[in-house]
Order: sequence, then C-alpha cells, then structure tokens
Amino acid sequence: MEKWLVGIDVGGTTIKMAFITTAGEIVSKWEIPTNTEDGGKYITKEIGQSLAEKVSELGESKEKLQGIGIGAPGFINMETGFIYHAVNIGWRDFPLKDSLEEETGLSVIVDNDANIAALGEMWLGAGDGANDLLCVTLGTGVGGGIVSNGNIVQGVNGMAGEIGHLTSVVEGGYQCNCGKTGCLETVASATGIARLATDGLSTYSDSSLHQVMEQDGKLTSKAVFDAYAAGDSLAKQAVETTCFHLGFAIGNLANAINPAKIVIGGGVSKAGNLLLEPLKKEFIKYALPRVAEGADFAIATLGNDAGVIGGAWLAKENSR
Amino acid sequence: MEKWLVGIDVGGTTIKMAFITTAGEIVSKWEIPTNTEDGGKYITKEIGQSLAEKVSELGESKEKLQGIGIGAPGFINMETGFIYHAVNIGWRDFPLKDSLEEETGLSVIVDNDANIAALGEMWLGAGDGANDLLCVTLGTGVGGGIVSNGNIVQGVNGMAGEIGHLTSVVEGGYQCNCGKTGCLETVASATGIARLATDGLSTYSDSSLHQVMEQDGKLTSKAVFDAYAAGDSLAKQAVETTCFHLGFAIGNLANAINPAKIVIGGGVSKAGNLLLEPLKKEFIKYALPRVAEGADFAIATLGNDAGVIGGAWLAKENSR
Repeated sequence: MEKWLVGIDVGGTTIKMAFITTAGEIVSKWEIPTNTEDGGKYITKEIGQSLAEKVSELGESKEKLQGIGIGAPGFINMETGFIYHAVNIGWRDFPLKDSLEEETGLSVIVDNDANIAALGEMWLGAGDGANDLLCVTLGTGVGGGIVSNGNIVQGVNGMAGEIGHLTSVVEGGYQCNCGKTGCLETVASATGIARLATDGLSTYSDSSLHQVMEQDGKLTSKAVFDAYAAGDSLAKQAVETTCFHLGFAIGNLANAINPAKIVIGGGVSKAGNLLLEPLKKEFIKYALPRVAEGADFAIATLGNDAGVIGGAWLAKENSR
Repeated sequence: MEKWLVGIDVGGTTIKMAFITTAGEIVSKWEIPTNTEDGGKYITKEIGQSLAEKVSELGESKEKLQGIGIGAPGFINMETGFIYHAVNIGWRDFPLKDSLEEETGLSVIVDNDANIAALGEMWLGAGDGANDLLCVTLGTGVGGGIVSNGNIVQGVNGMAGEIGHLTSVVEGGYQCNCGKTGCLETVASATGIARLATDGLSTYSDSSLHQVMEQDGKLTSKAVFDAYAAGDSLAKQAVETTCFHLGFAIGNLANAINPAKIVIGGGVSKAGNLLLEPLKKEFIKYALPRVAEGADFAIATLGNDAGVIGGAWLAKENSR
C-alpha cells in the first residue's frame, strides 16, 4: 500500500497540514487555528484530532500515514524534538515530538520552520533537487536554511542558518531585535527596505514615494519596488543598498558553503527580477569566480506550502 | 585481523603518509619527496611502491591495509577523485583515485588538503570529536574546512570552506591573489599580519619593530606577536586589526553554521592565547549570544599530522 507522508508547519496564527505522497504529490492540504491557550498545551491533541478526521474524510484509515515531519518556530533541540521556547506559540520546555507521537501513534521528526521551508524548496520547489542549497527568506525578518550534502545544517544547538543576523553594516548600523547592530535583517527585510526608503525621504524631495507616504502614512517594501520599477531615484538608492548588503552576505556565505542553488523567498521575493538582477550584480563582487559559476539564483516557488512539503520530506527520510 | 588505514597528504614538496589503526593510533608515519616531473605522472606509482615497502618493513602484508584516504591541493572532484588542476604538483586533468587504486589495489577516497586537515582535527585533535566544526588555518594564506553533522561541507564544485576569501575589508582593502580585494586572507594570514605591521611603521616611529626591520630587512607574523606580547603599540594595532577581521568573518560564519568548535591552525596559531584572547573579544560582537555560547575556540593540536590523520579517517568512513 502506498503511504502518505504528513507535513505540518506550526505558525503563531495557523497550523498548516498536508498529506503528501512519497513521490511528492499533495493529496490534501488544510489548516487549523493555532490554539495558544495555556502555553499551547492543546496543540498536539488538536493536530491529532484533525489528522484523524481528515484521513477518514478521505476514506482512508490511520494506517495510510507513514510518519510526521513538523516545523516550529523558536529554539528547538532537533534530535529530541524538544522545544525550549517558541514565543509566538507559548511553548516553553515542551516535548513536541513525544507529545505528538503519543497523540498520533506515528513517528515524528521536528525541525525549525525556516529549515523545513528550505527542505521543501529543495525537494519540490526552486531548489530543483540540488543537494547544496542556500535559502534566504526576506519577510518581516530575514531567515535562512542551509542544506549541505542533502541534509539541513543545524549546528550544535540548532542555531545554524541565522542568515538575518550576519553583520552587514559594520559601523553605524540600525539596532536589531537580537541586540546587535547592523544585522542583514535591518536592511534586507521588508521592514528594512521600507525603513531605508523612509529615512531617505528628506534627501530625495522629488521622489514619488512622498505621495505614497502622504496617502498611506507609511512605505512598504512593495511600494519601494514599484517606485524602483518606475525609475524613482530614492527607490533606486534603497534597493541598491539592500542588494549591496544581501550580495555581500550571500557572496561571503557562498564562499564558505559553495551552494548549487540560492533560493530567495518571502514577501520581498515577489519583486522577482527587480530584486534578483541588482542582487546578482553585487553577489559576483564577493563570491569567488568558481563559487559564482556554481550558484544559480532562483525565486522560491512553493510560497506558504514550502513548510508542509519540507515536513513531509523529513518524514520520508526519517522513516526510510 | 585488525587492519590499518592509510592516510596520505600530498604537498608540493613532500608526500606525507601514515598507517593508522581504526582506533586512531599512528603505527608508522613517513614521507617521500613529491616527484613533480612530467606533470606528476609518477606520483601514484611511487606512493604504491612506498606503501608496499613500508608494510613489508613492518613485517606485514598488503592485506593488512584497509583503504586509502588522500588529500591534495587544487581543484578536485571529490566524488570521482579527479584532479582538475593542482598547480604545485603539476597535475592537470589527472584521475588520482583511479590511478592510485590501480597502483595499490586498495579503495581510495580523495578530498582536498584543507578538508582532510579539518577531519584530522575533528577525529584526534582539537575538534575533540565535535560533529560541527569550523577549522581556520592561518598560514601563508588563510584556508578552511567546515564539518557539519560529522561530514565535510564540500559544496557543489568542491569550493566550500574558502574562508580566506570572505570579504572582510569592504572598502580600500588590499588586492588578493584571487583577484578580489579585501579578502580575509589579505589581513589575517601570516603575510597579511606582517604587511599590516610593515605599513604602520611610518606612523609608529617609536615601535620596537623598527629594530627588527633594520636587522632582518622584513617583519614576520612571529615578530609582530613577540612585540605585541611586549606591549608594542604598532604590534597591538596590527594584531587588533587582524583579530577584528577574523572575528567579523568567523562570527558571521558561525551564525550560519553554528559550530561546536572553532579550531585555529597554521603557523600564526602558534601565538596561542595572544591570538585567541583578542579574537574571542571580537567574535562575540558578531556572533549571536546562543551561537557564541555553543562555540569553543581551540588551537589546532596535530600540526603537520592533521592531513594524514584526516585521510585515515576518510578511509575508515569510506570502507565501513
């Protein structure tokens, strides 16, 4: 009997779930709200119930399910599946793997949300099966996942892939939430791009972004890229600054890990070539020629499904 | 019968070889000159002969040998053991693995010299068995090896670990041999440290390094660290500049790979704590707190034996 893999992506608002075949076809995907009550203690029970309902709705029994791969935010011990702390969920010292195995009777493997998204793109997305992959997610913050020899680089305490906290502005950088200054995240996230443009408004008095500011009361990364596409000089300055810092950080990292694919995801990546073209121009200034030759840039293709797909991939590898 | 592993480290002048037990004891180590004649075509034959002589000298037969792990400089396809180009040896498009397997009848696995040194330190040296390791070699240049989940990060075309070519001086850096400017190697290698001090001589007229310069006609990294230990202000400035750039590059890289051990090797590492103390001070400015907590610095302990030991480790893993 062909079995289904279960991929789960736990976020602060919703829990995304999917049944996926071992060949990578999505049989069904759905989501339930994240119940953050009482430190998130009901979450694994509710996941178990939802899986049981969905599998019977599809006319199958629980024996159809091979195993679970689940991604969660926060500090995680990947080996034991223990969550030290996941602020948005409420979990603190929570044995996610043990609890979910008990609720479902299935084997469970846990990784962090950025890593499973990277695995998803590797398996079925822009990574195109590459075994050496760097995923950079440009959203509210900047996240990352590194795949080497087909495996996630997790590091000694699960902190690997913190690409958003590579220092990119050596002197005079913005304060970052992590406590340091000048982190890549401060200038390359959606928030960072909007801030670069906002800070430049006083210098570029003829920028079209003044009208956006008057109308919306704030600038967004999307507004900056729209203005950039139309040739606005403030937007150009902001996008080029962002791409310089991204290119510097990614180019340096590429010299260390020599990826075949560099996948850019997150909201900012919707800018597509408006982002990739200036980024590649900066990247090749810092990557060694052979490293640059080996690395293809691509925009992430799986969007919000990357997590559940990567979770399913983990379940597949784990239950081999 | 307990078998011996063969570790080989090919350099431009000598070829180092060792028989090592699977428990990590060196049975015998020796070296032969590197015969670079005719594009290095006699090297594998000479290695085969030397192995046969040594094994019989030790009163054993060839059946005692389990397999060979060999490190070489240059551009290598690790999967096929094919050397595209090794300048110092003369090899160009040379099938090292196939040729050495033919000469010896043993299975051969090839990796680059920086990587096998990192594996050696991981197995029997300062790495202390850590599965997530960053090795930085400060010699004439700056080399590196990254171990993740117990395996070398090789990258898509064998270029991973090129830590010496992380850009560390963003603007106005020295020209590097690789064609870029401001590479870590230009300010953190033995050559780079000596150059920083030499360039500062005109500013620091009272530095004790003026006497060294008059006496020896040049400054070395060792002379700079000796003067630093004695409180010389030019030497202090040079060492602190080097440590800033090293700390910046290693701190950033640690945020991406989250190593348990950071092993510093090469000639410059003989400075010991004179190097490690200021380096750690800079490192924690750039590494995230949890990343810094997870990472112990150590000076490499195996010296010139790291390569043959790492080669033997590869042979052990390869023939399991």
